[in-house]
Amino acid sequence: MDKIQALRKQMKEHGVDAFLVPNTDEYQGEYTAPCARRLEWLTGFSGSAGFAVITSHKAVFFTDGRYTLQAKDQLPDFFEIYNTAEKTPMLWANENLSDNFQIGYDPWLFTEQQLKSYRNNLVPISPNPIDSLWEDRPKAPYDYIRLHPLEFAGESDESKRKRICESLKADNVLITASDSIAWLLNIRGNDVPHTPIVHSYCLIRKDGSYDLFVDLRKANGKTYKHVKEGKGQIIEIKMIAEHLKKIKGSCQYDPFLTPVSLIQILESANIPTRRERDPCILPKAIKNETELEGAEQAHIQDGNAMVAFMEWLKNQPLKGETTELSASDQLLAFRQKGKYFQDTSFDTISGFGPHGAIIHYRVTPETNIPLEKNNLYLVDSGGQYLNGTTDVTRTIALGKPTKEQIDRYTRVLKGHIALATAIFPEGTTGAQLDVLARQSLWDVGCNYAHGTGHGVGSYLGVHEGPQGISTRGTPVPLVPGMMLSNEPGYYKEGEYGIRIENIVKVVALDTPQGYFGFETITLVPLDTKLINPDLLTNKEKQWIEDYHEKIKKTLGHD
Amino acid sequence: MDKIQALRKQMKEHGVDAFLVPNTDEYQGEYTAPCARRLEWLTGFSGSAGFAVITSHKAVFFTDGRYTLQAKDQLPDFFEIYNTAEKTPMLWANENLSDNFQIGYDPWLFTEQQLKSYRNNLVPISPNPIDSLWEDRPKAPYDYIRLHPLEFAGESDESKRKRICESLKADNVLITASDSIAWLLNIRGNDVPHTPIVHSYCLIRKDGSYDLFVDLRKANGKTYKHVKEGKGQIIEIKMIAEHLKKIKGSCQYDPFLTPVSLIQILESANIPTRRERDPCILPKAIKNETELEGAEQAHIQDGNAMVAFMEWLKNQPLKGETTELSASDQLLAFRQKGKYFQDTSFDTISGFGPHGAIIHYRVTPETNIPLEKNNLYLVDSGGQYLNGTTDVTRTIALGKPTKEQIDRYTRVLKGHIALATAIFPEGTTGAQLDVLARQSLWDVGCNYAHGTGHGVGSYLGVHEGPQGISTRGTPVPLVPGMMLSNEPGYYKEGEYGIRIENIVKVVALDTPQGYFGFETITLVPLDTKLINPDLLTNKEKQWIEDYHEKIKKTLGHD
Repeated sequence: MDKIQALRKQMKEHGVDAFLVPNTDEYQGEYTAPCARRLEWLTGFSGSAGFAVITSHKAVFFTDGRYTLQAKDQLPDFFEIYNTAEKTPMLWANENLSDNFQIGYDPWLFTEQQLKSYRNNLVPISPNPIDSLWEDRPKAPYDYIRLHPLEFAGESDESKRKRICESLKADNVLITASDSIAWLLNIRGNDVPHTPIVHSYCLIRKDGSYDLFVDLRKANGKTYKHVKEGKGQIIEIKMIAEHLKKIKGSCQYDPFLTPVSLIQILESANIPTRRERDPCILPKAIKNETELEGAEQAHIQDGNAMVAFMEWLKNQPLKGETTELSASDQLLAFRQKGKYFQDTSFDTISGFGPHGAIIHYRVTPETNIPLEKNNLYLVDSGGQYLNGTTDVTRTIALGKPTKEQIDRYTRVLKGHIALATAIFPEGTTGAQLDVLARQSLWDVGCNYAHGTGHGVGSYLGVHEGPQGISTRGTPVPLVPGMMLSNEPGYYKEGEYGIRIENIVKVVALDTPQGYFGFETITLVPLDTKLINPDLLTNKEKQWIEDYHEKIKKTLGHD
Repeated sequence: MDKIQALRKQMKEHGVDAFLVPNTDEYQGEYTAPCARRLEWLTGFSGSAGFAVITSHKAVFFTDGRYTLQAKDQLPDFFEIYNTAEKTPMLWANENLSDNFQIGYDPWLFTEQQLKSYRNNLVPISPNPIDSLWEDRPKAPYDYIRLHPLEFAGESDESKRKRICESLKADNVLITASDSIAWLLNIRGNDVPHTPIVHSYCLIRKDGSYDLFVDLRKANGKTYKHVKEGKGQIIEIKMIAEHLKKIKGSCQYDPFLTPVSLIQILESANIPTRRERDPCILPKAIKNETELEGAEQAHIQDGNAMVAFMEWLKNQPLKGETTELSASDQLLAFRQKGKYFQDTSFDTISGFGPHGAIIHYRVTPETNIPLEKNNLYLVDSGGQYLNGTTDVTRTIALGKPTKEQIDRYTRVLKGHIALATAIFPEGTTGAQLDVLARQSLWDVGCNYAHGTGHGVGSYLGVHEGPQGISTRGTPVPLVPGMMLSNEPGYYKEGEYGIRIENIVKVVALDTPQGYFGFETITLVPLDTKLINPDLLTNKEKQWIEDYHEKIKKTLGHD
């Protein structure tokens, strides 16, 4: 309550009746650095999705269905907690705060889109009042920027900028998404766990020259040379306001990604602005030949680690000594043997039995349980390799699986194969294909409450857009070069979970009609103990056989 | 050119530089009465989709891919013709007309949605200048309104109005879609071909009382009694402006359906307005038990006609005496034997060989060709019965089909069966299921350039919303009681066309999970000569066998 009261005092000084505390940082990425976890500091909540609204009398918290129980556990009792599926912060504010309320917010942490539906008067407050209260606040990351060499990137940053500049609708573009900047400038960094991005902003002029706004401590001589050679200059990120004011001509920005503080700077300098989606998103998603080849090589390293792990697991007595945590550590040890391995691409989901049914389960010392010979083990994990990002899920029967488990696994597999073998015309979106992965489950009244596939970066975010495969997907057609996950599942609450996840790439088929299809890149065998061949068509059986044959041939294992 | 010049003179008098001529009438329905075919009178174009923009120097015409050839044929040479897939009238106007141009339009023929993206100044002109030029203009329809009895409607109009009034977001609702009014008041009429609607507008107050605005010549004693009993009054449609001005409280209207003239009346009277979709659309789409039973009975009448027709066709020598037109006439004769038959539900598509590949082919004396024993015959037709509306397509091999024809037909059938047997959870939309109908065609690089399914009325429009099955569908979940067509196809230009169309209803399955599925209502056998059993799964073979068994049992034929 001390922290909340201190914040309320600050709110009063700023003349606002409420303050919004999101869990995002200034870059709207999937992961944040410890110094940006203001919500966690204020509330104690450690989950990946949360939002607080603090008023003079109330403290209200919002999270999704995955985390409502955890929020009840971690938050002080005086917090009201809502599931965002039922009530968003904006809806709550519009319903509960009187029309003349002043709502404070940190303009560096919000985009236009995130704010546009609030009915109340919104008051930007910067610096964030939490920062002055947060005494033991961790330092901001300042690891050196690393250059991402052509051998992995496959296209020079000059060439990328040329392509982007040709597509501009204004004289300048302000790019604020860290993964877009990493892709565009062929740089990588260590600012957050799991995703090798550099927190920065980038202003690109139509002639291809650019300003990279970044904490200067991150730039060493190599970076300065690289930027200078590309007609760029490095500018201390704290000086961005002064520099943006000097923009010549108009500037486009992405209203879904850009902090409103930057837009306010442009507007107060009377720079004509234009709302356009970040021009890097689609080119980044369509991998070039080098990136695709890198992905295949990364998946060989990853496949070797997973095969070694599964072999190791098979030889464990499973009498209490092997746990979700120890298995996860062991898997990391195998992955670290990969030549280009850098980091896991997300926190490993290592869930035994009922824990496998928790879709985003994250094992902690408190939740850790031993693996036993009487249920399924679900492991969803991935690696960041210099040449590619991986993400794979396997479900393994420890001991003898039940008939129901075999039936459900086989149906998940049928869906996985139906998607993996789909053939489709140009213009088809992932949303159109989603039902192929669900149909065999729907046939027996089963389903899964998550998307079927997400885009994957090239030594970048393990989740990236714009393409995806889900019931309500974005209307982005799949095109050759895109990589996606293919991950149907089935979850029986309190009992077990099943998911089969491979990475696929979209390929142009060698047919006169020019249709597209998928090619599976992941190289990890399936647990055949869980397959009921009577439920499979000949075509499906052949796919499994061919897949295992390919793994054996490529990895050289048995 | 005389008509265009006369129109230009009128435009000058009204001080406008351009005039928009759509092919819609005051009710935005699928079919129009002859007196409303201003576009046809002006341009000579007889197709169902067209739009002209007349300026002082140019005459520009827009239609979709189905009609561009026909437009070139029928229109005077001085017309520029565009395909709306490439250029809409709005895009053309924004690109070609200078910013200070005044564009005239008839406010009775346009909705807000249709006008909102024009950049120029839009000037309403009413009455339509064409009307004073059109000397031999047909009379407006004035057939008597017919009451649609409870035995077919299944729910009283009072009960329907009660439901609608409970959902209102304003004190009044103005309904302008003729099929919504027909459904809501349990009335039918003969104002246009194929769809038994009454051209009218309806204002409903929150207490359920209402004003029906209609040409008074259409109302006889029975209608007056029916309306009076339902707390309604009939008002001459020409007097609508005076009456709308007296509305008490606010009024909601559908911006996609309401003529802007009516909105202008409301606004000039300072009546608070609110944009909401027509509240009848969803309730009308979800058929009640009586309507569903009626649909089954209508499909028995229709099945008998189709079976008799196919039997007749089998016995024709096909030596030149049987043509697309004569076959279509013969089919109508069989349909007319149905007890409740009133009209065809659309112009019969009777296409032999290459004509079958023209998706919206309409046979005329000029295009008519004989049926011969060397190709496929595609017949897409339907009836308006007092108890239901039908729409069925069959493809029949005359003589010996080719291997390719058999392969494509079998794939279309596999898609048809995949959709007919789909099981899906609550919340699933038609767009999600669409791929099931296409997958077998996509596998060999084939596809069809139309939707897979549309909603069907109950003795009303043969095409109705809001549900549908298509690649880019509306986000409306399928719910039990909805009826849809299931009509995949394949078209080889210049050679042949294939389509298999049945009507299905959405049903709740008797399973613990409460999933939904389809039940096929259409009762017309498939041409087994066109089926390659080697391409079918056992489940598919069983479906065909069961379907033919059901037809035999229900119709009592062999």
